[in-house]
Amino acid sequence: MPADPLNAFCTHSTATLKGAPAGPLAGLAFAAKDLFDIAGHVTGAGNPDWLALHEPAARTAPVVEELVHAGADMVGKTHTDELSRGIFGENAHYGTPANPAAPGRVPGGSSSGSAAAVAGGLVDFALGTDTGGSVRIPASFCGIFGIRPTHGRLSLEGVVGQAPSFDTVGWFARDAALLARVGTVLLASEIARAAPPRRLVVATDAFAIAEPATAAALRPAVERLARLIGASEQRALSASVPLSDWYAHQRAAQGREAWATFGDWIDRHNPRFAFEISDNFIRGMRVDDATLAAAREFQAARRREVLATLAPDTVVCLPTAPFPAPRVGEPRSAMWAHRTAISTLTSIAGTLGAPQLSMPLGLVDGLPVGLSILARPGGDEMLLAFACYAADAIGSPD
Amino acid sequence: MPADPLNAFCTHSTATLKGAPAGPLAGLAFAAKDLFDIAGHVTGAGNPDWLALHEPAARTAPVVEELVHAGADMVGKTHTDELSRGIFGENAHYGTPANPAAPGRVPGGSSSGSAAAVAGGLVDFALGTDTGGSVRIPASFCGIFGIRPTHGRLSLEGVVGQAPSFDTVGWFARDAALLARVGTVLLASEIARAAPPRRLVVATDAFAIAEPATAAALRPAVERLARLIGASEQRALSASVPLSDWYAHQRAAQGREAWATFGDWIDRHNPRFAFEISDNFIRGMRVDDATLAAAREFQAARRREVLATLAPDTVVCLPTAPFPAPRVGEPRSAMWAHRTAISTLTSIAGTLGAPQLSMPLGLVDGLPVGLSILARPGGDEMLLAFACYAADAIGSPD
Repeated sequence: MPADPLNAFCTHSTATLKGAPAGPLAGLAFAAKDLFDIAGHVTGAGNPDWLALHEPAARTAPVVEELVHAGADMVGKTHTDELSRGIFGENAHYGTPANPAAPGRVPGGSSSGSAAAVAGGLVDFALGTDTGGSVRIPASFCGIFGIRPTHGRLSLEGVVGQAPSFDTVGWFARDAALLARVGTVLLASEIARAAPPRRLVVATDAFAIAEPATAAALRPAVERLARLIGASEQRALSASVPLSDWYAHQRAAQGREAWATFGDWIDRHNPRFAFEISDNFIRGMRVDDATLAAAREFQAARRREVLATLAPDTVVCLPTAPFPAPRVGEPRSAMWAHRTAISTLTSIAGTLGAPQLSMPLGLVDGLPVGLSILARPGGDEMLLAFACYAADAIGSPD
Repeated sequence: MPADPLNAFCTHSTATLKGAPAGPLAGLAFAAKDLFDIAGHVTGAGNPDWLALHEPAARTAPVVEELVHAGADMVGKTHTDELSRGIFGENAHYGTPANPAAPGRVPGGSSSGSAAAVAGGLVDFALGTDTGGSVRIPASFCGIFGIRPTHGRLSLEGVVGQAPSFDTVGWFARDAALLARVGTVLLASEIARAAPPRRLVVATDAFAIAEPATAAALRPAVERLARLIGASEQRALSASVPLSDWYAHQRAAQGREAWATFGDWIDRHNPRFAFEISDNFIRGMRVDDATLAAAREFQAARRREVLATLAPDTVVCLPTAPFPAPRVGEPRSAMWAHRTAISTLTSIAGTLGAPQLSMPLGLVDGLPVGLSILARPGGDEMLLAFACYAADAIGSPD
């Protein structure tokens, strides 16, 4: 394991795997969030009681194996919010990874250690998971690239899941070219051959949720994207209902599914969680069948509605998060208000099952903010290929 | 600190105080729940984050000082459910004290270590607190005597409180004579001179909540009490509303008050609790003003109603708990059902602010169950004096 000034890596696990001698990722080092099984090691999932009560994994998660077979060295497992139930990256048991791009600020979560390790240069790329924003938000807060692929695109085998309707495997890199190169392996697809987008939709309802300074910081990049693509329009992504409803319904369905995933174990072991984590689980535990059914109907309706107007050659752009990373150590009441705003944005891709890629294209008072591009399900390759082109053309934010 | 095969004592604190050379409690050893301040030591309250985030107490709680001035040696601080929010005595951080009277069973809580230390003979008596049953239930489960005095009778200064409308300081002993002797000091009152009860009310609605085997095990003791007192009647204590309503309203008011007590600290520090403890706090956090107001009105109405028919020379008898101590390690869903039944019984004294004394006068399959006597507020001396007489006359259960 590399030196770790950022508290990015799990200290309870020294899981490492040597990459194959040749392959498209040879010579690169990566880390995996401590939700990914590595044979012979207990997957800790960010909670010491989970760690203590589970056996070592019998086999390594296939996505990890694919990267190792492609030549990359797996150099360690990284910190996560407890059982992936958090968006800020603050872990009460293991400490909060440092945000190398925003000192004194949270790294974002739940793929906190993976984002910190990439942002701080400890590894070349890293695996995370994204259920409600857990790759996109730390990418934005840490000033790196991150992708949540199309729901169902990558195998979740050997990964501690949370809410099956929303769970995805995602990854981080410091530049778009490497993000795409990893995608070539994981998606088993020729990304360079993907057709480029022909139309940009600037989602006005999503930008309305961002704080004014964040929206302003992203505006130059949005204008460059529009020029690069050619055709563009400004419109609300969700014509019929406010995005706050998207959030409310995803929260209900995701919470209820998370309770279905972890409830028996929690009931049996009464584990120790930070207060906020228990609160997340308890909200899910209390979602009744009627609320769940309404959430499922809402999700189906949004998919019909939005996908009817979103052509395969169209990219939507939106702020990844409504603001830069909050300070470490704020009261939960303040953080919960932040979370509502964040999750309203992240529920768009979650509800649609759509791929979303965050690029570090803005700064607010020196703190990174991400600009996201989103496509129809299956548009992963288009997003990865276009990000390489756009990031190169736009360059770093001032 | 004495040898501790029961895990009764806090290992983080070695707080001890030498008793005065003479006094009514000279030569006796006692322990205090780790909610009582001892000058120079941090009060840990059963939670490691509370312990880590607080300074040593500046002075010793007055009730502890009174016992030391009366000659008793304070020999250590005992385990408690986290922030006194539990009824079973299972502490996820420090472990569950053993129940010396019922191996493999929980000791009851939240004054778990104090009850275990007394039941196991590690000390002569011990201090606890009782908000929703935290002295009465461990007394019943561990087969010892315990009293929750009249609300407001003893000082809560230097004690980590939970819900001011219900909080009391109580204590445990293995025999009624010592329970009364400690009461002489703490109540500053001549207990031997208290007038005896003239009438017994057998609370049929409370007995209806007990499991049949527990009610049956207590019946011989109830009959002996009735003969000892002379006049007796069988009637529902609560004529107008079921006891389940008493529980629902106390739960709301107590939960809301507990959030008022601890909510700011929790909000600021996001501490680690066992899942069940967070659930307790979250239910209180969500109690709205209208529900709180209804609970306050309900409490006032029950006090008017019951106290109008409860003469100062009357003692009510009821089962302390509906069953013997449950097994350690049951799922929370099972324990929560137990808790509802337990708290329905304990809400009687809580709602009325009445003193209640539990005596180990029954056995169910070899496991202790307590029989309680309850009086009007202010009837503490009558209960303590009568318990000495009655316990002696009735003797130990088979």
